[in-house]
Amino acid sequence: MNQDKRIHHTGLQRKICSAEDAAQWIKHGDLVGVSGFTGSGYPKAVPGALAQRIKESHNKGEEFKIKVLTGASTGPQMDGVLAEVNGVSYRSSFNTDPKMRERINNGDTTYFDMHLGQVAPFYRSGAIGDMDVAIIELSSVRADGTLIASSAVGNNQLWLNSAKKVILEVNSWQPEELDGMHDIWEVSTNYPQDIIPIRTPSDRIGVDYMTVDLEKVVAIVETDTSDRNTPFSPPDDNARMIAGHLMEFLKDEKKKGRIPEKFLPLQSGVGNVANAVMEALSQGDFENLTAYTEVIQDGMLAMLESGKMSVASATSFSLSPEKVQYFNDNISKFRDKIILRPQEISNHPEVIRRLGCIAMNAAIEIDIFGNVNSTHIMGTRMMNGIGGSGDFARNSKLTIFMTPSLAKNGAISAIVPMVSRVDHASMDIHAVVTEYGLADLRGLAPKQRAELLIEKCAHPNFRPLLREYFKKGLDNGSMYTPHYLKEALSWHERFVATGSMLPK
Amino acid sequence: MNQDKRIHHTGLQRKICSAEDAAQWIKHGDLVGVSGFTGSGYPKAVPGALAQRIKESHNKGEEFKIKVLTGASTGPQMDGVLAEVNGVSYRSSFNTDPKMRERINNGDTTYFDMHLGQVAPFYRSGAIGDMDVAIIELSSVRADGTLIASSAVGNNQLWLNSAKKVILEVNSWQPEELDGMHDIWEVSTNYPQDIIPIRTPSDRIGVDYMTVDLEKVVAIVETDTSDRNTPFSPPDDNARMIAGHLMEFLKDEKKKGRIPEKFLPLQSGVGNVANAVMEALSQGDFENLTAYTEVIQDGMLAMLESGKMSVASATSFSLSPEKVQYFNDNISKFRDKIILRPQEISNHPEVIRRLGCIAMNAAIEIDIFGNVNSTHIMGTRMMNGIGGSGDFARNSKLTIFMTPSLAKNGAISAIVPMVSRVDHASMDIHAVVTEYGLADLRGLAPKQRAELLIEKCAHPNFRPLLREYFKKGLDNGSMYTPHYLKEALSWHERFVATGSMLPK
Repeated sequence: MNQDKRIHHTGLQRKICSAEDAAQWIKHGDLVGVSGFTGSGYPKAVPGALAQRIKESHNKGEEFKIKVLTGASTGPQMDGVLAEVNGVSYRSSFNTDPKMRERINNGDTTYFDMHLGQVAPFYRSGAIGDMDVAIIELSSVRADGTLIASSAVGNNQLWLNSAKKVILEVNSWQPEELDGMHDIWEVSTNYPQDIIPIRTPSDRIGVDYMTVDLEKVVAIVETDTSDRNTPFSPPDDNARMIAGHLMEFLKDEKKKGRIPEKFLPLQSGVGNVANAVMEALSQGDFENLTAYTEVIQDGMLAMLESGKMSVASATSFSLSPEKVQYFNDNISKFRDKIILRPQEISNHPEVIRRLGCIAMNAAIEIDIFGNVNSTHIMGTRMMNGIGGSGDFARNSKLTIFMTPSLAKNGAISAIVPMVSRVDHASMDIHAVVTEYGLADLRGLAPKQRAELLIEKCAHPNFRPLLREYFKKGLDNGSMYTPHYLKEALSWHERFVATGSMLPK
Repeated sequence: MNQDKRIHHTGLQRKICSAEDAAQWIKHGDLVGVSGFTGSGYPKAVPGALAQRIKESHNKGEEFKIKVLTGASTGPQMDGVLAEVNGVSYRSSFNTDPKMRERINNGDTTYFDMHLGQVAPFYRSGAIGDMDVAIIELSSVRADGTLIASSAVGNNQLWLNSAKKVILEVNSWQPEELDGMHDIWEVSTNYPQDIIPIRTPSDRIGVDYMTVDLEKVVAIVETDTSDRNTPFSPPDDNARMIAGHLMEFLKDEKKKGRIPEKFLPLQSGVGNVANAVMEALSQGDFENLTAYTEVIQDGMLAMLESGKMSVASATSFSLSPEKVQYFNDNISKFRDKIILRPQEISNHPEVIRRLGCIAMNAAIEIDIFGNVNSTHIMGTRMMNGIGGSGDFARNSKLTIFMTPSLAKNGAISAIVPMVSRVDHASMDIHAVVTEYGLADLRGLAPKQRAELLIEKCAHPNFRPLLREYFKKGLDNGSMYTPHYLKEALSWHERFVATGSMLPK
């Protein structure tokens, strides 16, 4: 294992050190910018060494907490280890780590949830202060000192530009052949910003490397550790039914000429339902698909290989352990078909609207009037975060939210009288799909949306209760949005009290 | 009054007829595209004649209702007269007419509320069907048959392209010198769409006229009638205090270098508070202001004249009767400083984000966690609609919502435990201002937002109650978003039951 073969710059070779030494550069109160997006491309060694330091400080009764900005979610060696030692005072922009989630929900960590396409402008606005340290995973360093990102681009270039000190992790588990797959283009820091010249998902507009002021690099750590690589979650019957309804809808839209012959770029979240959609697309009639999305998951890789999909543009990978192994072993097959961009570009409203994406995202719950909750459990606890769903939902040509009609073995209905948190207001949602059917909500008023969502999407166990709620709203004299406020959140209250939204 | 001097095309001169004759072209069930935005540039004669026909049909027991798509709000001679006869089955995209509001809220008219920058893509998506008739107000017709819009551009060119039959109203009240002030540029109907090449608010990218297939023009009606021109609503003390807090904030942002020396384009809504902000800006220290906004109101006109503002880009005017008279009499002063664009362009996320606008909009209510309701009264009744607030709020560099802390003589608090409707989720709101102060919410978690909004923005009468609610949420164990669901909407319930949010 000759990791330092990945570091071709002699000056930087001299800065190679242990994770423990590298972690010494980080102080209590520091704002730390970290690489990583959807469990890919995050640093694997320095955060653990830092967590150890933090633990020792805490044991001595000393304060030690840092503020962390990432691309999106990282993995157990980053958010997990830092949460374990209660080492993070402030966290943005997205998290899926269960230990960090617990810190966020018990108040130990202040969490700022935001659109992933707006993390960079938010940082540049200056509202959060200056970045002290960046910890960035790379796949290699070129001889000229330029840096090759690993499996996620995220906000890496901005963190490299902004941090006073830079720590690099060069991970030899990442294929060296990632070199050439990135497309780094920086949004102007001054206004008006430059036009983003992307006209198709395959357009390359920048350079394939990142840059850093080498004087700022204080440490380089060599690692050989896999990304988080969540196991593939195979589609179950419900997921397949959801995908089936969605495919029918897309076929019908194409037949009506609303989706052009050459189709439109796809954006898809991750997980069981998204996997079923990818499976259905790969077996379906649509050809020459493209993706303009955040993450490349197993199903897209399969379609790129089979030729169903010609190109996928994203900011990171989110692959299963099996698929990542296959990808790393066969990367040459994919090199010309994948482009990894900064998340500000992968999720930019300018490009999403220009391309006319089809956005397909998961919802936690949806109310009968078509508002979507993507973030909160029972109105109070943070699940993960809004992620890029808002960037795509607001700006896509077709915006679809998907969810099984039930959760918690039937105790929770995904279709509720009023969502306990709104992340996507009704005007941003074109269609909702559950295993029972698809509700095409375009152009409909709240009352019409309610009828469709209850009769087409809700689980039959909950339909009579939803109809009853809707009738109470109408009887109450509200004919535009017939809410009955007294009971609007009663299902959530009941669940918290009894463990089920169903009355005893 | 030689109105036909406005119609310089001989073929179209032959189609001049009465409003009554023109209205004959419209049938029950027709989808009608109408000009008009913020009470400007809507047809003044044909809708009245149509309303008369509808009334006669209803008197005979015949069905007669049409579906109406506009730019945004119109006036009493359009939405008012049609609502009076219950002549509209479907209405989108925005309404401020009190009679139409009543139809929407009593269920007579189906209302689809949407982002004003997305009306055109929504229509082009085909989801609402084909347009039967367009009724478009013009200021003149050129000899070559091209059409000059009047005081609003809205969706006019799209309606002219799409409708099977076109009715034109040429309004000689509108100054003929509007010719040259419009900039018509059409978004591509195919994907990927063209890049919108606007780099500053003053950029002209299209042509100054609209086109129509002359064969489709079935009638031209001559009118001489003013726009709605809502009387100027002078700033009261609260509005001046809100403007004062906002100016302090903007000054501070500029001092910190977060707003550049040449400032950023302003977007502003209309009304009492917006007027106070314009007044404060016109008296303040900022120079070389520009506007990239939906509507040009009295205050902007004053700043354009004084030189404080160099250019204003919008899709329509919304002036007081006095100011519109002044504008019409002195239009040559403003011709080079005002650009009226299609609303798809004035409100386009691509341009708004590129320019880095400062968005200043009114809210109906805001909850302690920073979510904004712009549309609904007590969760059930539609006020006006979301308008362009979402287009600007989501994409601007700075997004500010403003409201007096109280409404209905103190019976309603604008800061509530939970908004009864969410139009703008918390991540889209950077600052909230009431007469008590400004809460800078950037980067804050829900708990921190609650503390600021209660202590800086809420009216002192309601602060103890808000603190009590917040404490109940915390005591209830929710440390991320500490809602206490049982009482989350109790203030609205109490208002509906007792006429006040304050407990007896």
